[in-house]
Amino acid sequence: MACSMSILLKNLATDLTLIDVIEDKLKGEVLDLNHGNLFLSNVHIDGGKDYSLSSGSKIVVITAGARQQVGESRLSLVQRNVNIFKHIVPKIAEHSPDAIIIVVSNPVDLMTYVAWKLSGFPRHRVLGSGTNLDSARFRHIIASRLSVSPSSIHACIVGEHGDSSVPLWSSVSVSGRSLTSIEPKIGQPDGPKGWDTVHKQVVDGAYDVIRLKGYTNWAIGLSCAEMVESILKNKHRIMPVSCFVKGMVGIKDDVCLSLPCVLNASGVNNIVQVNLNKSEKAALNKSATLIAKVQEDLKW
Amino acid sequence: MACSMSILLKNLATDLTLIDVIEDKLKGEVLDLNHGNLFLSNVHIDGGKDYSLSSGSKIVVITAGARQQVGESRLSLVQRNVNIFKHIVPKIAEHSPDAIIIVVSNPVDLMTYVAWKLSGFPRHRVLGSGTNLDSARFRHIIASRLSVSPSSIHACIVGEHGDSSVPLWSSVSVSGRSLTSIEPKIGQPDGPKGWDTVHKQVVDGAYDVIRLKGYTNWAIGLSCAEMVESILKNKHRIMPVSCFVKGMVGIKDDVCLSLPCVLNASGVNNIVQVNLNKSEKAALNKSATLIAKVQEDLKW
Amino acid sequence: MACSMSILLKNLATDLTLIDVIEDKLKGEVLDLNHGNLFLSNVHIDGGKDYSLSSGSKIVVITAGARQQVGESRLSLVQRNVNIFKHIVPKIAEHSPDAIIIVVSNPVDLMTYVAWKLSGFPRHRVLGSGTNLDSARFRHIIASRLSVSPSSIHACIVGEHGDSSVPLWSSVSVSGRSLTSIEPKIGQPDGPKGWDTVHKQVVDGAYDVIRLKGYTNWAIGLSCAEMVESILKNKHRIMPVSCFVKGMVGIKDDVCLSLPCVLNASGVNNIVQVNLNKSEKAALNKSATLIAKVQEDLKW
Amino acid sequence: MACSMSILLKNLATDLTLIDVIEDKLKGEVLDLNHGNLFLSNVHIDGGKDYSLSSGSKIVVITAGARQQVGESRLSLVQRNVNIFKHIVPKIAEHSPDAIIIVVSNPVDLMTYVAWKLSGFPRHRVLGSGTNLDSARFRHIIASRLSVSPSSIHACIVGEHGDSSVPLWSSVSVSGRSLTSIEPKIGQPDGPKGWDTVHKQVVDGAYDVIRLKGYTNWAIGLSCAEMVESILKNKHRIMPVSCFVKGMVGIKDDVCLSLPCVLNASGVNNIVQVNLNKSEKAALNKSATLIAKVQEDLKW
Repeated sequence: MACSMSILLKNLATDLTLIDVIEDKLKGEVLDLNHGNLFLSNVHIDGGKDYSLSSGSKIVVITAGARQQVGESRLSLVQRNVNIFKHIVPKIAEHSPDAIIIVVSNPVDLMTYVAWKLSGFPRHRVLGSGTNLDSARFRHIIASRLSVSPSSIHACIVGEHGDSSVPLWSSVSVSGRSLTSIEPKIGQPDGPKGWDTVHKQVVDGAYDVIRLKGYTNWAIGLSCAEMVESILKNKHRIMPVSCFVKGMVGIKDDVCLSLPCVLNASGVNNIVQVNLNKSEKAALNKSATLIAKVQEDLKW
Repeated sequence: MACSMSILLKNLATDLTLIDVIEDKLKGEVLDLNHGNLFLSNVHIDGGKDYSLSSGSKIVVITAGARQQVGESRLSLVQRNVNIFKHIVPKIAEHSPDAIIIVVSNPVDLMTYVAWKLSGFPRHRVLGSGTNLDSARFRHIIASRLSVSPSSIHACIVGEHGDSSVPLWSSVSVSGRSLTSIEPKIGQPDGPKGWDTVHKQVVDGAYDVIRLKGYTNWAIGLSCAEMVESILKNKHRIMPVSCFVKGMVGIKDDVCLSLPCVLNASGVNNIVQVNLNKSEKAALNKSATLIAKVQEDLKW
Repeated sequence: MACSMSILLKNLATDLTLIDVIEDKLKGEVLDLNHGNLFLSNVHIDGGKDYSLSSGSKIVVITAGARQQVGESRLSLVQRNVNIFKHIVPKIAEHSPDAIIIVVSNPVDLMTYVAWKLSGFPRHRVLGSGTNLDSARFRHIIASRLSVSPSSIHACIVGEHGDSSVPLWSSVSVSGRSLTSIEPKIGQPDGPKGWDTVHKQVVDGAYDVIRLKGYTNWAIGLSCAEMVESILKNKHRIMPVSCFVKGMVGIKDDVCLSLPCVLNASGVNNIVQVNLNKSEKAALNKSATLIAKVQEDLKW
Repeated sequence: MACSMSILLKNLATDLTLIDVIEDKLKGEVLDLNHGNLFLSNVHIDGGKDYSLSSGSKIVVITAGARQQVGESRLSLVQRNVNIFKHIVPKIAEHSPDAIIIVVSNPVDLMTYVAWKLSGFPRHRVLGSGTNLDSARFRHIIASRLSVSPSSIHACIVGEHGDSSVPLWSSVSVSGRSLTSIEPKIGQPDGPKGWDTVHKQVVDGAYDVIRLKGYTNWAIGLSCAEMVESILKNKHRIMPVSCFVKGMVGIKDDVCLSLPCVLNASGVNNIVQVNLNKSEKAALNKSATLIAKVQEDLKW
């Protein structure tokens, strides 16, 4: 629903269809949105259990899946969610064969891979929200420390969405001035005080929100709408999102992970080359291997 | 939170402060919104228990109050919510003495009156969301039946927000063509089929949503943001909102009810004269007397 | 250019192509817009002489034509502009066979008819800006007199764009309250003072702007963008626009005139029935006959 | 007018007042904008010769001044424009003593200095559009070459707006990856082909537009609206704008030049430290000295 509201209030959709198995609750949501349709200036909003209602969608956002529990790791959710995806992805592919699929469900990198495999779609048409939100958190925290807008900060987190995500400190810049050019060890354990815990704050961010309010929704909804916008409006914006990355930065496993991607009307138009130092590369490959191992054990 | 998201995504605020007694949950919401601040292009978002955090607010939206239960009438909530307002309104008035207060809590007409009394503010600076949402639902249903945008329909519901609200069928028009000029009995029990149940659908709308999903939020959030916009941006839009109406359309009681109002930077700039027929006037006065009676029994 | 800026700043387009014979000036405009593309968040903007650049357009706005001179009637422009349309409309139809054409060039009703004939398109896919702007001027003037937002006024001008346009005073309402129910003669020569000249102000509006600054552009650009929005986003908004109206309200001539239309993804989805009194009907038919006569003398 | 349209269509203003000596033309512009006020959702738009109409403005944008002729250098305009500013700036300061002044008139760095001196305002409340537009052009050209959105490019031009502007190639990055880390000599005469002329294209950009269409307006209007937004909405965005820079990056002259600044509700909240190499520093100081020399000869 947070994705829906962000998409609606950013005027991105002319038609929005919600699909869920819990049909009563869903009908309530659709009715509530439609009651506000005057203020949305007339979007066609519908919903139900039947995937045919969403036939011919340009973009399908999948948020289905069990919610991460307090303290639960994203990886532990996986088999449950694979079972759900086996039910829904083939139907999406059947009814919207030209769609671009955005996976939000966690663990997002694994689920993006699963959605890609189950859909049979070309790789540029299946992506996951990945570290786009982690990067937004990263930029927000840095921006707050420097009293500037997060839009004036460049900073990017790549790799696995979650605990093993990799912050690219070497590319953090404010108005084009690289922070490592001022403080070479910024963000490192032995770097300037206060900055060493920034990445931990990012990782803990999701857990903090879950602990405090039970789940995350607003920021991921906004992040998702930004991806939808760059795709539907062919913006060619670069965002770190999860997609099939075998062959990039030395990754040899069949996995999806986040790297900066150009998002346009075709989906992932391009993966941007990033400059990783040795330890960043190692961290990324470790994530890849870890994810690949989990994938091996999945029952399809 | 639905009000907050609508306000944020419509770019209405530079500062947004959330106040609640359940501080943990609130901190989670503030953190979640701030994680999305990159996508909101840097709004200052804060929150806590202490009303001083919101000092100097231009607009204060009050959504506090027990939620309407499945099947519960809005009136039955009242004393519980009065007790809550006795706690919060004086603090709002102390910290934001020049604010315009928008009451969303139900039963909204009673609570608007209570907020007005407790604040000591001039009457044009305390209003309630009233039948702005009922009118939006009304316009949505009529627009759907005619396959046009709700923005091209004029239709207005006045009086009490809820069961005894009064639809002004005589002023319903599509592109300026009055529906009663085509079908004089439209909307009446003995009028054209299908149209006689439209007002019932509006009244049932809230109950349907509550029955299906447990509460209403998106439409009321959007409706509230529209009011905030007309006030903050001095738009002079006419909307049916709840305010002190003694002396209008024959009402002799000390009550708040919804009539079409011009909303601008000063709050309720003006109440628009409406043309009511005898039965509409009677219905309105009956609501007023009913509300006045409940107010008499309140413990302040 | 005013149309372009309104369309761009309302985020309606992902691709915008400008076509003009004066290629140098056009290249300057395209370059200037592209220099601002960062602030438009990356729209693909291009332009040139060759209509193939605009191939596959969803909407084509035609603003080509000699400008109305100070004091010149719209009708006197016509043959010059027909000659221009004979050059451009077939090329538009060739390169964008599924487009919806919006004619802005004056005299707009005649030129809409000409564009329709030359395109060979079905009638719902060729429309003119017509009295949408006259109606906006009408609503602005009424709204200013009443100190409310023009969006809270319903008022509509139909018929020919220009001197013989027909204001529908009987459908003017504020918040659903018909002004004629208060002042039956409002807007008439023998009606309440000040209101009798409102329609004259609307008609003179265009001439005033031309006299003062040499041409009109901003308001017509905004009006045009509103039409584009309702079509591209399938809004089903009702707006008075020019289209082929033979058979409506007693018109027997082969002409385009403005009546309230539902604009959606298919173009003119529907013409709304209006309630005209005898003199309004007569005025409309007189316009129709006048236009038909001019059309007879055109050289195709 | 391009500034006005950008400000209006970005919903930044509730009140907009235009002041000009050519009152007829101005009345035409005000009337034309007001005719479109329905589509702007009711902004209060007014104008005239008298500065009291703009009393109490939060932001004053000065675009007055003779236009740059084809081939004319910005510096040659200066004394003519100083004479104009002597007439208008004191009146602005009198009627809007708390305003933030944004100077758009060319030569913008000199005119910003002149406006600052004549206003008597503190330095953070007088700024010039400076190289914000040059930087946007720079980002657009780089983005086009790389097929990504200009918002995903960081690149900044500082110094004098115009011929002697200084592109900071060392801080150009795409998604955080510095281009000089790939091609150390990018942008230099002996650097990779195609890139060596990018800065020349930026500088020539304004001249090209002037040569082709006679003047520049859309991009500077959009650039100006972005500055207005960051100030009015307290966004803390970093933009290269012109302000008093004595004491920064070794500048000893009393001049205004563009450096990246944090723009918030107080105006220029902060000037961001930039990392300049020796030749960049020298170029900037040369510009400063040149401007200072011209300023010495001005008649105040």
